[in-house]
Amino acid sequence: MTASLLSSEDLEFLLYGWLNAGDLVDEEILMPFLELSEKLAEKAFHPHYKLSDRDEPSLTSNGVRVCPAIAPALRQYAELGFFAASFPEEFGGLGLTYLACSASFAYFAAANVATAAYPMLTVANARLITAFGNAEQIERFALPQISGEWFGTMCLSEPQAGSSLADLNTRAVPDGNDALGDRYRLTGNKMWISGGDQDISENIVHLVLAKVPDGTGQLPDGTQGISLFIVPKLLDDGTRNDVSVAGLNHKMGYRGTANCLLNFGERDGAVGWIVGAPGQGLRQMFKMMNEARIGVGIGAAALAYRSYRLSVQYAKERSQGRPVGVRTGPPVPIVEHVDVRRMLLAQKSYAEGALALCLYCARLVDVEADDEDAAALLSLLTPVAKTWSAEFGLAANDIAIQIHGGYGYTRDFDVEQLWRDNRLNPIHEGTTGIQGIDLLGRKILRDKRALAVLAERLRYTAEHAEMVPELAGHVAVLRDSWARVETCIGVLSATEATRVFDNATPFLRAFGHLVVAWLWLDQARAALALSPKPAPFAEGKMMACRYFFEFEVPRIAAWLAPVQSRSDVATSIPTAAF
Amino acid sequence: MTASLLSSEDLEFLLYGWLNAGDLVDEEILMPFLELSEKLAEKAFHPHYKLSDRDEPSLTSNGVRVCPAIAPALRQYAELGFFAASFPEEFGGLGLTYLACSASFAYFAAANVATAAYPMLTVANARLITAFGNAEQIERFALPQISGEWFGTMCLSEPQAGSSLADLNTRAVPDGNDALGDRYRLTGNKMWISGGDQDISENIVHLVLAKVPDGTGQLPDGTQGISLFIVPKLLDDGTRNDVSVAGLNHKMGYRGTANCLLNFGERDGAVGWIVGAPGQGLRQMFKMMNEARIGVGIGAAALAYRSYRLSVQYAKERSQGRPVGVRTGPPVPIVEHVDVRRMLLAQKSYAEGALALCLYCARLVDVEADDEDAAALLSLLTPVAKTWSAEFGLAANDIAIQIHGGYGYTRDFDVEQLWRDNRLNPIHEGTTGIQGIDLLGRKILRDKRALAVLAERLRYTAEHAEMVPELAGHVAVLRDSWARVETCIGVLSATEATRVFDNATPFLRAFGHLVVAWLWLDQARAALALSPKPAPFAEGKMMACRYFFEFEVPRIAAWLAPVQSRSDVATSIPTAAF
Repeated sequence: MTASLLSSEDLEFLLYGWLNAGDLVDEEILMPFLELSEKLAEKAFHPHYKLSDRDEPSLTSNGVRVCPAIAPALRQYAELGFFAASFPEEFGGLGLTYLACSASFAYFAAANVATAAYPMLTVANARLITAFGNAEQIERFALPQISGEWFGTMCLSEPQAGSSLADLNTRAVPDGNDALGDRYRLTGNKMWISGGDQDISENIVHLVLAKVPDGTGQLPDGTQGISLFIVPKLLDDGTRNDVSVAGLNHKMGYRGTANCLLNFGERDGAVGWIVGAPGQGLRQMFKMMNEARIGVGIGAAALAYRSYRLSVQYAKERSQGRPVGVRTGPPVPIVEHVDVRRMLLAQKSYAEGALALCLYCARLVDVEADDEDAAALLSLLTPVAKTWSAEFGLAANDIAIQIHGGYGYTRDFDVEQLWRDNRLNPIHEGTTGIQGIDLLGRKILRDKRALAVLAERLRYTAEHAEMVPELAGHVAVLRDSWARVETCIGVLSATEATRVFDNATPFLRAFGHLVVAWLWLDQARAALALSPKPAPFAEGKMMACRYFFEFEVPRIAAWLAPVQSRSDVATSIPTAAF
Repeated sequence: MTASLLSSEDLEFLLYGWLNAGDLVDEEILMPFLELSEKLAEKAFHPHYKLSDRDEPSLTSNGVRVCPAIAPALRQYAELGFFAASFPEEFGGLGLTYLACSASFAYFAAANVATAAYPMLTVANARLITAFGNAEQIERFALPQISGEWFGTMCLSEPQAGSSLADLNTRAVPDGNDALGDRYRLTGNKMWISGGDQDISENIVHLVLAKVPDGTGQLPDGTQGISLFIVPKLLDDGTRNDVSVAGLNHKMGYRGTANCLLNFGERDGAVGWIVGAPGQGLRQMFKMMNEARIGVGIGAAALAYRSYRLSVQYAKERSQGRPVGVRTGPPVPIVEHVDVRRMLLAQKSYAEGALALCLYCARLVDVEADDEDAAALLSLLTPVAKTWSAEFGLAANDIAIQIHGGYGYTRDFDVEQLWRDNRLNPIHEGTTGIQGIDLLGRKILRDKRALAVLAERLRYTAEHAEMVPELAGHVAVLRDSWARVETCIGVLSATEATRVFDNATPFLRAFGHLVVAWLWLDQARAALALSPKPAPFAEGKMMACRYFFEFEVPRIAAWLAPVQSRSDVATSIPTAAF
């Protein structure tokens, strides 16, 4: 590996030159932590990137076997304290902010997202238990995850209920209580469980959404009756809980992460303990889910970023063809061809744009508890950070294949795998279609506060950018796009409820591009304000910003066109006409 | 397999309801031929679709072994006369038109594009020999390919010369002559050779681009010195020619097609016979290449089409969630969710749009010899048919994964493989970047005739669509888009030569969308004119047309924005700033 995973110069700029991370964590503490992250990611996660794609998880009589190279990498990750980094000291953690941990995680995702998924899920699981579990549950189930000895999963989906959690059928029947709280017996099938089984951690802590039947044995309708349960793979006495692997999904990418169909309760029911009060499961899960969505965005951004770095390196090394009008002399590196440069700019604007967006959100996570505006803005931007990074990160991965030409289509290079790995991101943790409904319904039309906060921050950036000669021209374009989005929100506010989501996905794309345009303008402003000006770094930011305004911002009007005209073609076409 | 590969109703409409194929070939002859194509594709090509993806070509001491299921499928294809279909009777063919053969080929590409690649290459090879070879060459090398006993390859690229054929290093040294013509000895390395070796045909006929050194042993500069040679794998006496497999490329998709690095002349030089006169190689190859590019378009359209059919079936069968505002009652099929319908419409507009575009071009191939306008239009539309079908066909494949959700991301379903297979199409036979330069440079700025022909055909469609109430609203939009494109062409005509290609790719995308918008309007017009009106078929065409005008046509302005403003950001950014 010669191209670096990410640009540490850019990461330092994003954190300290742009996001004022110094208010949260001292640069002299964080930067060595990120250096360590980069080194570990390069030395322990990246070397088995291709191997763990080929050597897929398999089902043995003993459960799931994963690529053997994954275990030692995660052991090192645990030993160096990375599982614990984000937890407070009382739980054995380092107390690092979400922003700091997100920046660190980006290196691991860039190096090997499938290996990085195990700690990502484990940390999210442990955080949920520390947030909502009782002291005994924290002691018994969270702490071994914080130390990295046990791993965790999230068991939401079922074969018949992917996005539609209201239709969960997993059943939890009361079974007395003990020191860990109210005990239940669970029966049901859970689908798409990442890390659902593996042979690399001592135990696995499943967090399972299930419903408690009423007196007649009926499961409650809808999502209100969903509760959250801790179901360990191995019980205290070392025996196996009643959880079995019914199948493995063979995926397009992300293959190092074992993805299982789990059967709970094939015998007497799997033993589980409820977390918090009954009926709180979805609320608890969604507290975690919002951070998970930003985590998905960070992963998608990192995959895009890695493919951008590889593209730049390849374009500088690969010679082919000559400049326009030149027929003799040696071939030139393809980075000199304008269309390759255009593609690199698109990649840069997507990859760096997505990372900036997600880190911006991560910073909001760190302050939302004490800042209602930040909380509102975070809520608004979460579906954008998840979806925009997934979709345009994937577009950056696609461009990487194109820049590499035929070579990019072979498995000798990393870029095709980076695309395959990233293709999961627009699907899991809420599909793009679901994020569009979330943005429009919950985050914009139901409550105007968040939009007002966003408008204020845009105004602030615009006013400062207007004073910079290189950027002043973009300000009018940004204001114009904002006005277009506001007009559409007006149209949507006056639309009947059953029709309001007709074009929620194109709206989400337009809104996402507007947000990223704003952040590009703000990045360029901050880069140009650095002193001494670190050219060509600042020039790169300025040019990527220019690219975004000249090539990408015009797409906003195209996405909004059917929103504004309230196109009903999708509802009008008869199903038989497909 | 339950969803059909393509819609035979649509194909019949495109051929006889729209393209007046009856002027070329009787419906009562062609439709049974297409029915046979569909059956053979379903029964012989599709069953090993996933198997030949898993069981990749491998290198043995005897050469390349391909998935054993491919051979019997192609034997049937040969026995039923499909290799021969497009050739005149004098060569043992059926004399079917290019349009007819393209429609037939679409079924095979939809069923298994990697298996279909062998006959596609073989037919192109034999056609080139029948067009430019001498009688003895035709007899010895073309006829066994027309019968399907031997297969053919095209050897253009070299490791250091992918797109840049001027830099070919393969050397052909005169070696006397015989009944087959002037004989040469070839030495050099050829990369990306599809079907470069395999164990399923009796012999392989390589068509090789190489240069003849001058008196001092130097190879001529540029493309003028390139000649075309026939280099068989096995010589007349059954001994192996001096051609060896130096390696196999392990691809992302299209895996059933063995793709090789071939070494010519490791010993005494590979024996080859020149086709036609020296220095004509590129001209000859490009005669074939234009048809090959439409063939790529057909393949891409077929892959998109197949994924659309699978998506429709899945969306009707999979139940999940409820309509907006409904919280109780059983889940509904996802085809009832508006965002899924929007995605299906996008797929339909891409898949059917691409097939229509490519068949339109195929019809031009059939008449270009006697119609200069048709020849000019074909030349203009060829880079569009290749690129638009590849890029938006791929977008349709991507949507298919999204509609299938997590299931689409697994290899249990076909849609992820359809994407991987199609991802080659924007790369081979001229990348998208190269097609953009071809369109703008050779096909638009150098000669305005083709554009005038296109303008006339657009005018014709517009005038007829204006009289149809359901379509009249689109006409103004089409005219407006045409005016935008014309304005940009004006800007580009006044641009200095070294800068004219700065944004050729966005221009190609805009131009492609304009062409497809025109063809959608024309398809809808023709479908509504059918009598008796075959609803819901005609309604589907009308709605897809409406979708295209409401959601897709607005993108034209977005792509043209940087063309019109002559954005120079890609040339301005310093290389060090990437």
